[in-house]
Amino acid sequence: MGASTKQGYDIAIKSREIIRELIKDDIKELNPAEKDIVERIVHSTADPEYAKLVSMSSDFVDISLKSLKNNDPILTDINMVKSGITQYEGEVECYIKNKDVVKISKDNKITRAAASLIYASQNDFNGILVVGNAPTALYAAMDLIDKKEIKIKSIIGVPVGFVGAADSKEELHKTKIPNIITNGPKGGTPVAVACINSLIQTHKEI
Amino acid sequence: MGASTKQGYDIAIKSREIIRELIKDDIKELNPAEKDIVERIVHSTADPEYAKLVSMSSDFVDISLKSLKNNDPILTDINMVKSGITQYEGEVECYIKNKDVVKISKDNKITRAAASLIYASQNDFNGILVVGNAPTALYAAMDLIDKKEIKIKSIIGVPVGFVGAADSKEELHKTKIPNIITNGPKGGTPVAVACINSLIQTHKEI
Repeated sequence: MGASTKQGYDIAIKSREIIRELIKDDIKELNPAEKDIVERIVHSTADPEYAKLVSMSSDFVDISLKSLKNNDPILTDINMVKSGITQYEGEVECYIKNKDVVKISKDNKITRAAASLIYASQNDFNGILVVGNAPTALYAAMDLIDKKEIKIKSIIGVPVGFVGAADSKEELHKTKIPNIITNGPKGGTPVAVACINSLIQTHKEI
Repeated sequence: MGASTKQGYDIAIKSREIIRELIKDDIKELNPAEKDIVERIVHSTADPEYAKLVSMSSDFVDISLKSLKNNDPILTDINMVKSGITQYEGEVECYIKNKDVVKISKDNKITRAAASLIYASQNDFNGILVVGNAPTALYAAMDLIDKKEIKIKSIIGVPVGFVGAADSKEELHKTKIPNIITNGPKGGTPVAVACINSLIQTHKEI
């Protein structure tokens, strides 16, 4: 759970016990790997409401674990999300500061987060997309998948905000792309990081 | 507000308008710089409850702005927080992976976040401390300040979690150290980053 000392580990264990009690009714239908994702999201936000907000497609965990086993790259929308993913053997990329991405963004008048997806498609990305902040990155991903210009194994789509975020997640969840979302405006970096780190830990344990 | 394109900027402006309407009653007693901090926290979490949870000492903004003007270093508890602070001219440090810190942590059986504060004290740190995650970092800071072994201008103390976080913040808020906290278990990286980035923006505008 990110703890590297006994003191940190003890805190994490006790926290998990409290969380399990708080949200057990909301997650009773989930399998162990899915439960771990939701518990870890609540752990990282101290917000039990997330247990009611998370929705994932039935294939999300399996496809994501296969992708991690394959050492596929992980692409994040912003560097804050990337910094939270420290235990993966494969590559973790964020293109937001890449010069080509800045150029694509300016030329097309789109956000750099959206431009990152175009750049990824031009560089044969084929892995897991983790979006904690930018709805525009989710829309760009869905558009490129639709046009068969990019391959994405699964999407952690949890952008946060009162404008656009909820709609982008609802739209993603209607697609056939293996996905996890948080319904409504809430989401963000810790939610995205909790989700991918839970998967990485499950992948290492199996 | 972190946006670098018109599309991103428009989203941020509209989001702020929604937030101001949602939380205006909770923040009416605050001055403009304080209001901006709270609005930005709600913007980054999409959680209006934060407007009720934030408490700051009356000297927090003034002392922090003076420290930023002085180009004092900013120390963060974890790298995720550091990654979110991209617009400051001064140094932004995180010692969690520093070899000396790992040794201090092992030797003293304390978390690496707490060991970071001891390392900072040994290296004459004198700036703003930003804690988004580790209550142990807050306790270490309070202890070292108490023993006059470290100088800290102000503390953003918003660790998240069901174990220890709330107590550590309550204790910090009782001290004379200029501080901002979130009451209760909630807090975390986006809250910490929103707070310091709001101050950095205010500092640049005055």
